[in-house]
Parts: sequence; structure tokens; C-alpha cells
Amino acid sequence: MPLVVQKYGGSSLADAESIKRVARRIVDTRKAGNQVCVVVSAMGDTTDELLELADAVSPAPPQRELDMLLTAGERMSMALVSMAIANLGDSARSFTGSQAGVITDDAHGKARIIDVTPGRITQALADGHIVIVAGFQGVSQNTKEITTLGRGGSDTTAVALAAALDADVCEIYTDVDGIFTADPRIVPSARKVDRISNEEMQEMAASGAKVLMLRCVEYARRFNLPIHVRSSFSYREGTWVYPATVEGEDDVEAPIIAGVAHDRSEAKITVVGVKDTPGSAAAIFTLISEQQVNIDMIVQNVSAVATGRTDVSFTLPKADGQRAVQALQDAKAGLGFESLQYDDQIGKLSLVGSGMRSHPGVSATLFQALADAGINIEMISTSEIRVSVVTNGDLLDDAVRAVHTAFGLDSSEGEAVVYGGTGR
Amino acid sequence: MPLVVQKYGGSSLADAESIKRVARRIVDTRKAGNQVCVVVSAMGDTTDELLELADAVSPAPPQRELDMLLTAGERMSMALVSMAIANLGDSARSFTGSQAGVITDDAHGKARIIDVTPGRITQALADGHIVIVAGFQGVSQNTKEITTLGRGGSDTTAVALAAALDADVCEIYTDVDGIFTADPRIVPSARKVDRISNEEMQEMAASGAKVLMLRCVEYARRFNLPIHVRSSFSYREGTWVYPATVEGEDDVEAPIIAGVAHDRSEAKITVVGVKDTPGSAAAIFTLISEQQVNIDMIVQNVSAVATGRTDVSFTLPKADGQRAVQALQDAKAGLGFESLQYDDQIGKLSLVGSGMRSHPGVSATLFQALADAGINIEMISTSEIRVSVVTNGDLLDDAVRAVHTAFGLDSSEGEAVVYGGTGR
Repeated sequence: MPLVVQKYGGSSLADAESIKRVARRIVDTRKAGNQVCVVVSAMGDTTDELLELADAVSPAPPQRELDMLLTAGERMSMALVSMAIANLGDSARSFTGSQAGVITDDAHGKARIIDVTPGRITQALADGHIVIVAGFQGVSQNTKEITTLGRGGSDTTAVALAAALDADVCEIYTDVDGIFTADPRIVPSARKVDRISNEEMQEMAASGAKVLMLRCVEYARRFNLPIHVRSSFSYREGTWVYPATVEGEDDVEAPIIAGVAHDRSEAKITVVGVKDTPGSAAAIFTLISEQQVNIDMIVQNVSAVATGRTDVSFTLPKADGQRAVQALQDAKAGLGFESLQYDDQIGKLSLVGSGMRSHPGVSATLFQALADAGINIEMISTSEIRVSVVTNGDLLDDAVRAVHTAFGLDSSEGEAVVYGGTGR
Repeated sequence: MPLVVQKYGGSSLADAESIKRVARRIVDTRKAGNQVCVVVSAMGDTTDELLELADAVSPAPPQRELDMLLTAGERMSMALVSMAIANLGDSARSFTGSQAGVITDDAHGKARIIDVTPGRITQALADGHIVIVAGFQGVSQNTKEITTLGRGGSDTTAVALAAALDADVCEIYTDVDGIFTADPRIVPSARKVDRISNEEMQEMAASGAKVLMLRCVEYARRFNLPIHVRSSFSYREGTWVYPATVEGEDDVEAPIIAGVAHDRSEAKITVVGVKDTPGSAAAIFTLISEQQVNIDMIVQNVSAVATGRTDVSFTLPKADGQRAVQALQDAKAGLGFESLQYDDQIGKLSLVGSGMRSHPGVSATLFQALADAGINIEMISTSEIRVSVVTNGDLLDDAVRAVHTAFGLDSSEGEAVVYGGTGR
């Protein structure tokens, strides 16, 4: 019997009526001849309400206790979904992350799954039950403490369980119809993507696309697991995120460009007047990494011959910006730079598509589209299947629309144009 | 270092402010030089809200899932209390019933504690932490399922943990000042009792006194553990429920009467015209026990010589009344009785005191007080330290007041009169 893992987010479980609707959908999947294992998030606003309570008793609650508190949210929703299924005459068993064998490291609030030992799940499925598992949570291997996985944790739980159970598909239910070629709130003509490779989805998620979190996509890629992202409010097909087939062999049916992602969460630091000697850049980035800050893009200018000095710019999460600036200022003498510039009004646009590999003109078209729209490019970085540019934050929406149109992604134009560029 | 186990009920944890107040109290206890292990109930109305949610998705939710849902309540409160303690600069660790080693049987919704293996608690206390444990919940020995203990479960958790940890005292915090000689809502002149023996408390709880549940008192008695029932809203001493000292030796300082309990939760069935032959009563009560109904009082009249028949009356929980009546009706032919009378408008008054053992006039004084108040007695039952009577339910409050006065328990009269009765 096929095994389907489904994940329902908080917006699909907002209230009792939503829970009953989700239960109906789960039972339908079971009746269609599948074993069903369901991962649930906390209901609607539960997590926010719990965080408010925590804030009311302590401005800086210990992370261990915060994890204990927040995990109550999924506990409630999983029990309620199980009850709603029982009310439809089917049989469901709910399990916490710990009971489901979701083993994590010790990092409260942002734990990583290091193993899944789903013995109780396998047994419950074999006994004919539908299984409901609390997402977002696990138990730490060494300390046996309750942990949470951080943002997107329920998706990761679903994919990890699907991999451990050798499921046929992992369905991620959300409040949108699937993955779009761009954020429909910015580009109203954005189209739903029917298929996207796991590799492309990984770049999209890393570039700011919010529907699937990066960790979940990485996990699915590692285990060669197909993900079906779809809406819990309709029965339409969503977007299939399919695993790579043969190494290096692209899906010839796929359009060149999968989509345009954008990200407003980063800031830019420019270190001005760095001595252009071996080890200067290394010293800067060692310092930053000691602050536990993840750097995204780095650009180093050619040094001026007259001074033997250069400028180094990099982007990092806004939340870490002030900390990084402070650390650099404190080490100014040792690092020997002239000054710092900090800009948190930037935006990043990323164009993702595995077709880029064989179509070298993509970057040129991108730059031309931005130039035609009068948008200045501040930084550029590329991977094999992605081109990212940093622009003024105020112009980011315009940039996304311009690029979306330039690559023929707008739905009014029908299918995406197969692009034949002429050199980069 | 002395070890104190404290239990705070939902009314003491109604909101963030209450939680902070409780945290202050816990930290004070720790600063006074004690190790502190705290058992908490769910906050204020949380349990009712969860039950409402359950009811909204399923009119008859599976008990396993209901336990999973309800245990989220204590999980939230224990994490919040821990956070509030951390905010005061002390260190607290919260543990679920399962983590705390509260092992129960498999009876979801009304599980009994069969063992406590508090290894993690002992370790956390040894490490210098204050420990917060979720009350009302455990994990089943055979199936490793999450269970709840039913009404009064948090008190039982506290007493069981105190016994397992060999604590010096178990403090039960509530919203009243302690145990009273009668319910102050009925008898405004009722006095707080400073000391009451565990044996007396057990009879009081079994007779309808609500402050401590019977199971918790039984547990404390078995483990010879002192309980201090007190208010979380004041620092006054409450009521000490002290363990029996030497078998058969009463506390000579104690007043003869500990208090007057009452109970409105029972109904009375009279089986009229039962053949007065060996086995007739046995057949009736076998039938009732097969319905899983607990019988409280039983009275059988002397049989009428002319007919060789008698009447048998017994009391049982109102909730089970209709089921028992139906079972008896169905078996009427076999049991050979004439008719049934059912009365759910009864009240039970119980006078409890270990001093009764040595003062035989207690019953006579009780009956005289009721007679003087014009209250008819329908049934009587006694134990070594208790006399219970069933009256018309409408007259129960009057009965409680009359008896409370007759035994000199009213606070305006100062200390209880030492009663020297003259025969029963």
C-alpha cells in the first residue's frame, strides 16, 4: 500500500472547522488506498499567543523552557486532528516529536534533526491507524530534552519522517496553490509552477522564496524524495518538487527559468580601504564568523594601484547587522581598514533555473532588463543555476516585475518563452 | 537540606501576574534554604478551553487523544512558571509527568499512579535547580502512552512525588486558607482547622469535602507524609494534615470533631419487597457492581414477619443512577422484588473526628441536633470515626449549620467544646 506523508500548516488548522476539513481530507487520502502519516503545525495563532504569554512572565525566557512551552501548540493540534478523524469513523493516533523518534541535536530553538527512529509510527501504521505527528519538535540525543526545530520546522519534520518511512510522496499543504514564478503579491501575473527540480527549489528557498524552507528542501534532496506543495483549500494539483534524476542531466521539458525570488531580510556592510595583502579578507571574515553570523554575498573590488587598498562588501541578515558592525569597529586597528558603511535598505533579486547551465545569455538579459527599468545593480553573485543581484530596497518590487516580464514568465503570455540568449 | 514539594492549582496560576507571584513564592522557599520541587496544574480556564475545542471537533473524542490534548495545559503552565523563576535570577527546569517518572496504569482519563521513578528530578535538584513538574499526567507502564489522572490528579502527583523524593512536607496551595470545620459558603462561622489527622481527612474527603481529593489523602497516609494545605494568596499557616503516629493512639490535643462534610452528588435507590432469604441482597449488589457503579451507604430494614419481605436502600453517584435503575428493572423477574423507588434529591451530612472512638455520645448529640431542627433522617451509616446521615436535599444546608453549632464548632464560640456525651 502506498505511504503518503502530509503536512498541514497553522493556517490550514486555524479553528475547529478547519481541523474538521483537514480531517476529511486525511480520511479521503486513506480511503483512496494509502497509508497516511500526517505532520501538523500549531493551530493558527497559537504560537504567537504562547510567545506573548512567555513575554509577559519573562523578557528573556530560557530557551529550554520556551521549547517546552511552544511544543504544547502542536500537541493540541495533533490531538484535535486525531479526534476529528475518529469522529469521521476512522482511527488515528497522535504522537509527539519525541514519541515519533525525531532525534535532534541540543540546540534549543533551532535544533537540527540528526536521526529519525519511527518505530512507534511504523507499528501504528501497520496496525491500520492514521498517524498524526507533532511537527517542529524533537528530543535531543544526548540530554533527552524537548527541542524545537526553528522556522519551517514542521516541513522539515514531514520530509524527515517521509524519508525515514520510505514514503512515496511528501505532501506539504499550505494556504497557496504551490510554488509561483514570483511572489504573487508583487507580481500579480506570476504563474504557478507545475514542476521544479529540487536543486532549483533549493536555490529559490535560499534566495528568499518563503513557501518551502531551505532545510526541508535540502533534506528532501538528500533522500531523493518528491515533495508535492499544494493548497489545503482546494483539490487542485500544486507544484511537484522532484528529485534530480541522473547527475548533470537536466529535465529537458523544464523551462529555463524556474522563478524569480526576492529577499528583504539582508543588510550590506562595506569595509572601506582594506589593505590588499594576502590574509586581509580572511581576517575580516574570520572575525565575522566568530560572531556566528552567516554571510551571503561577498564582493571585493579591484584594488586601487595608487593606494594598494580595496573595498570589501558583504551581505548578512539584518538581525546580525549591528553586532557585526560593532565587532568590526572594535577590531579596526588590527584589521587596518579605513571606514565602514552599513546599509539595511537593500533588496536581493535572484533568478533561478537549471536551464541556465546551457543558456549562457541569462545574466545579460537580466542586467538589460534592470537597466531598462532604471535600476542600479549594487552587487552580483552567481551559482550554476542562479543569478542574484542586490539593488536599492525601494526598487526591489519594480526589479522583480521587470525581470519576471523580461523572461516571459507572466501568465498573460502563456507558457514561459524558451530563451535562446547570445552570450553573457 | 530540607526538601519541600509544593503544588499550585489552576486558580493560583490564572494569568501572567499570578504566575509571577507564584514564582516569587517558590524562590522565597528556595532562599529559605530548601530544595524545592513544584507541581503545577493547568492555568485557570485552560482545561475548560481545551475541552471546548475537543467538543467542537468531536462529540465523543477518544480518551487517548483527550489525554494528549489536556496534558498540553500543564505543559504550558510549568514552562511559564520556570521562565518566571529564571526572570527572578534563580534556575528552574520543567518536566512533564513522563519525564518526571510518573508511571501509571493504562486507564486514560482516570489513570492511577503505580510507580514514581524520579531520576531526572533528583538529578536536577542535586544540580541546584528548582524543579517544576506537570501535575495530573503520567505515562503508562505497558503502552508508554500519555495518561491523565482524573480529578484531583495534580494533588496526587504532588503527594506521590513527595513520597518518592522522601520530601519533608508536601504543601498544597489553593485559593482558600485550609480545611474548614464545614463549607464556609454554607456555614459562615466555620473555622479553619489547624491540624487534622490523615485518617480524619480521608473520611472528610470521602464524605464530600472538596479541598483535598480522597486519592491524594490515601497516598499521603500510605507514605506517612505530612501535607500542609494553605492559600497561595497569603503567607498564613493553613491546615496540617498529619500522619497517624502510633496505631490506635489518638492525638490527645485534637478536638473530638474535626469537621462536618456534606455531599449532594448522590442519589438513593430503594428496592421494595425483596424476599428476605439468603442471597437476595447479594444478587442485587452483584448486579449493581457489574454496572461498574460504586455504592456508598446501604440500609436493609427488618423484614415484615407476615410477608417475609424487606426493603433495601442504597446510595450511589447521581451520574450512575438511571443506569442502575434500568439494570434493576431489567432483572426484576430474577431478583423477585416488588418495586423500585429512586430519589436524587437527597443530601448526605457526615460528622468526622477521631475523638469519636473514645466519646460514644456523638451520634446521640447529632440525632438530637437534627431532631431539634426538624430534619428527618432517612439513612444512617457509621465508621469508627465518622457518622453519616442522609436527609432531604433541601434541608441539607440547615442540617450542616445545626450540627456545626451543636458540636461547638462555630468560630464565635472560640475553641471547639470538648464533648463528653452520655451513651449512644
